[in-house]
Order: sequence, then C-alpha cells, then structure tokens
Amino acid sequence: MRVHNAPIIEAANGRTPSRPPVWFMRQAGRSLPEYRQAREGIDMLDSCFMPELLAEITLQPVRRHDVDAAILFSDIVVPLKAAGVGVNIVPGRGPVMDAPIRTAADVGALPILDTDIPEVAQGISIVLDELTPQQAMIGFVGAPFTLASYLVEGGPSKNHEKTKALMHSEPDTWHRLMERLTPTIVAFLGQQVDAGIDAMQLFDSWAGYLNEPDYREFVLPYSTQILESVAGKIPRIHFGVGTGELLTAMSEAGSEVMGVDYRVSMADAAKRVKTRVLQGNLDPALLFAGDDAVRAAVARIKAETAGLDGHIWNLGHGVLPTTDAEAITRAVAIIHEEG
Amino acid sequence: MRVHNAPIIEAANGRTPSRPPVWFMRQAGRSLPEYRQAREGIDMLDSCFMPELLAEITLQPVRRHDVDAAILFSDIVVPLKAAGVGVNIVPGRGPVMDAPIRTAADVGALPILDTDIPEVAQGISIVLDELTPQQAMIGFVGAPFTLASYLVEGGPSKNHEKTKALMHSEPDTWHRLMERLTPTIVAFLGQQVDAGIDAMQLFDSWAGYLNEPDYREFVLPYSTQILESVAGKIPRIHFGVGTGELLTAMSEAGSEVMGVDYRVSMADAAKRVKTRVLQGNLDPALLFAGDDAVRAAVARIKAETAGLDGHIWNLGHGVLPTTDAEAITRAVAIIHEEG
Repeated sequence: MRVHNAPIIEAANGRTPSRPPVWFMRQAGRSLPEYRQAREGIDMLDSCFMPELLAEITLQPVRRHDVDAAILFSDIVVPLKAAGVGVNIVPGRGPVMDAPIRTAADVGALPILDTDIPEVAQGISIVLDELTPQQAMIGFVGAPFTLASYLVEGGPSKNHEKTKALMHSEPDTWHRLMERLTPTIVAFLGQQVDAGIDAMQLFDSWAGYLNEPDYREFVLPYSTQILESVAGKIPRIHFGVGTGELLTAMSEAGSEVMGVDYRVSMADAAKRVKTRVLQGNLDPALLFAGDDAVRAAVARIKAETAGLDGHIWNLGHGVLPTTDAEAITRAVAIIHEEG
Repeated sequence: MRVHNAPIIEAANGRTPSRPPVWFMRQAGRSLPEYRQAREGIDMLDSCFMPELLAEITLQPVRRHDVDAAILFSDIVVPLKAAGVGVNIVPGRGPVMDAPIRTAADVGALPILDTDIPEVAQGISIVLDELTPQQAMIGFVGAPFTLASYLVEGGPSKNHEKTKALMHSEPDTWHRLMERLTPTIVAFLGQQVDAGIDAMQLFDSWAGYLNEPDYREFVLPYSTQILESVAGKIPRIHFGVGTGELLTAMSEAGSEVMGVDYRVSMADAAKRVKTRVLQGNLDPALLFAGDDAVRAAVARIKAETAGLDGHIWNLGHGVLPTTDAEAITRAVAIIHEEG
C-alpha cells in the first residue's frame, strides 16, 4: 500500500488519525473557478476519459482546500459508456440514455464491461504521483440501483416510477438487469484498485427513494457483491442521499464506513449501522451561512460522533455548484482545527 | 359539525370507521383527464380563486375514485397572493416570486393577510353541498417553512441554500419572517374552518430538507401556533415529504394525525410520533406497477398499522401527474376491500 498513515485511512480502519480527516463529496467540480476553466469547451463524459485532465481536476481541490483525500473525478455512467452503452451527460440535466432499458430483451442486450479503461488508470497514476503520503486517493463507483434507474427511466428522474414499476411488475427482469450491471461495476472498481486507489466509495445516489423492504429485496444483494469484490483490499465507504431509513440495510452490504446524509443525526446513525466508523455529515447549505454557522455544526457533529471508532468528516451531500470556493477552504480549516 | 361518522373523521379521532378510509394527496389534479379539461387555458393561481371551478376540481376525484374525502383544490401560496405578495405559478416549475424576501427590510414589508378570501369560502360551500355525510372535506394550508423557502429562494429550490443561510446567518430576520407568515396562514386556515371544512392538513413540503435541530429551532414553534389555532375544532393532519428524522419533532407541533412519507415503515413511524393515528403511506410509484404490487403493499402496511388507534390510508407523497386515473380508482377499491 502506498498510503501508510494517511488520516482518512487511519480513521476508516478505526485507528486514531493525526488530524481530523476531511474530504467533501463533489469537491472537484463546478464550485472551483479552475475547474470551470479546465472543463471549458470539453464535454463532461469526454473529460472522464482524458487522463491528464481528469487528474488535474481531481487534484485541484486537494491543492486549494488542503483536504485529506482526492476523490476520482469521474461519473457513475463511465463504466456503462466504456462498455458500449449509448449515454451522454446533458449539461444542467445529467446522464441521458440513447434508449431506455425496459424489457427483458433490452436487458439481455445490455453490454457488460469486459475491457480495461486505461484512461482512468492513467489518470489515477498521475494523481498518485502528486499526492503526499498523508493524502489518500479515493476511487468510486455508482451503485447498481442508481445506474439501473438512469437506464430504465432513460435519464434523471424525480420519482423513479418506471424503475419501481419494473421492479414490482417484472421482478425477474429487474434481477437480470442488476445481474448484468453488477459485473460492469465490479470490473471498473477492480481496475481502480489495480491502479492504486487507497479507498473507495460506493455511491447510491437514488437509493433514498426506496423503502427498506424494496431495498433489501431488489438492491442489497448486488451492492453487497460489489463491496465484497474489494473486501480486505481497501477501506470501503457506502453512501446514499436521504437514506436514514436504509442505514441498517445498507450497512449490511459490508463496508468499513457508512456515509451519513445531513438529515440524520450522527448519534442516530451510529445506532442503526453495523460499522463503527461514520462519514459525514455537514449540511452543504451551511457553506452559504458563514463560518460561525459551520463552527456550530462542527461542534454538534463532533459531540455526536464522540463514541465512534472513527469519523471521516464530509458533507451530508455533495458541494453545491454555487458554493463560494473560499467558504469551502475555510470549512476544511475549521474542521482541522475544531473537529 | 356536518360530518358525524365519516370514516376519515372516525379514524382521525381514534374510533373504528365503517370502512378503511382513504384519500390521496394530489388526487385532484393532472392525473385526471377531466381536470386537464377543466383547467384548459386557465392559469393555476387564477383557478384557485374561482369558486365553481375550484369546487368542481375538488369534487372530480371524489366522484371518480370513491375516496372518503375531498381535499381542497388550492395552492400553498394562495394566502400570500391574497395578502398582496407578487407570486405566479409557472407551469412545470412552481411558484415564482416577483421579488425574493432576503433582508430585514424585505421581511418588514411582507404583507399579512387581513381580509377574507370569499372565493375559497364559496368554493368550500359548493363542495360541502355535494358531499355525502360519509365524505369528509379536508382543508389545507402550507407550513411556514415551506412558504418561507419559496419567498427567500424566489421560487422552487433543490437545496434551499439561501433559506438555510438566512436561518443561520441572520436568525432574528428568520424569526421575524416566520412571525409575519404565521398569522397569514392562521387567518387562511380560520377562514376554511368557518366555511365548514371537516379536517385539515398542514403541508410542510420542504421540511424534509432540514435536520432535527434546525427544525426544532427555526420551524416547530410556528407550525405549532398554526395547529393550535384550530385545536379542538377539527382533526388536524401534519405531513411533510422525507421527514423520517423529523417525525418526533413534527408530532410535537400538535395534531391528531401524522402523515408518513413512503420511505418510513409505519411501524417505525408509530414509535417516533406522539399521535396514535397515522396517515399513509403507499409509494405513489406503485400505481405504475399493477394491482398485485398495490395489494402486496396494502397487506404490508395493514400489518404495520395493526396496533394503532387509527389509520387513514393515503400515499406517502402526492399522486404523480402521469399516473393512470384507472389505476388510482383500483387502488382505492383494493384499500377499501383489503385495507
């Protein structure tokens, strides 16, 4: 392992870090002027396949904010694109499929990733060369439920009704879809591990739209397979938005760390999960409210996490695109000083 | 009281109803072809001030679906509009303010409703004339947090960052805003009670974007005042989307019934609330999945609510606009037979 005692890895493993470790979801992205400049005129998905550019974007927030980890700049649909699925990221909207996947025949024809994505491995290599031993490189993959929702709906959805209709009206087709998505995600994650990532996060962006029985029946077995595929290799973080009711089930998928949405108190989250390490959960909107508001929330979360084996500081959702970059830097400093 | 033993009122009061009572949030609206026809060419907010039209729209789902209640066709910004606030409902977007409310001066200039809205009272009167004694008329008002978010953001918001920034950076201004909104909501609710509504629901659409400490400090006192203003007069229902973490606090605002989002199991909700009657919580997406899926969910929810003093069947969020009207009718029938 490249990283020996990086604070994030120490915390993930339940050891005492040299300082309170912090990174922010979506720290690489539109909140940074240097990101907007780097991406200018370049399509989002294209940028995920350009090694120098994705490395540069991944490193920008590490340089600027003094966060304790780089998070791979990528998109959850990258492995689908690499497998040959017709998908584009439409600015202001999100991933849009050339054709939705809704029938057993559609599912049968869904390609599975069976090649390397060398551009991502090269990008990770560039990032690793620039990181200090104290800074961890976190890889990530999207969870199969979230990918399935994009495929079934054909794009971003507010209510996921076609996805849930497929799940409940054609459960066999649903399970076959998940069985075809899972190896693609496992393959992409394996490539990131081979490239040298120090930790990983499984992002289930839309899981919070499911109730617990549906999550357990239709999603959990597949997220479990993905996390199991890297068990013992690197620390694993599992996160979804609005998942207060799912924390117990999600934590059964097997991860060292559970990410917690900003809506849930860390004390309540600790009671619901099987892990002894939590990540989170500052409300990203607080970065618009001034340093005193951040300080008050940091003090509250510090108290709520006092009894844990480990705590990785993060937001309870991604950085909002309109966030002032300097407010992010100051929040990181406040966490390092007072967290 | 006009209604003596309507199933919804019986259930709300903890007595045994003659059949499992059911109504659906957004049952009046775009899912019905007769609604789309009635509204054709008529602005949404204008329609809320047209007595015959609002009564017709309110009654359409009662006639078609055999639900046990009419829910007043209105919008949470109606009392603001009546008070003189510049607001329009933009199709596909929602309420948009002429000018956002962000400073102490803006708040000081916010008008308070001090006149009757006779069109709404007349509409309620028309509805009451057509309902049977078994059918309840439910009035509603928006909660002050949700209204404040529209005012501060200037329109619908995904993350409510300006609202939360005001809350945390200028708490005095925030509390003054809530103090100016509350009497407007109380006045509009009082007018509905005077017009003869049998029950009411306080809708806090966006409360689920707050964590519990923020909800308790910045919202709960005002929602409490609104519910207290009709205590002992009619049964009160309190509902917000994605509010699993807030159920305890929200139930302290004082209502006979707590509405439960579809994400939360009714058994868990029952442990969190102070009320002994719950409303909910079928996933509205299930209306796209066929009758068997609805039947299975009804059986599960029936089991989860078995120990309660009362249960009003509903969705755990509003009817989705693309829902097939006949699927709604069948779901109501399934609930009446098997609920």
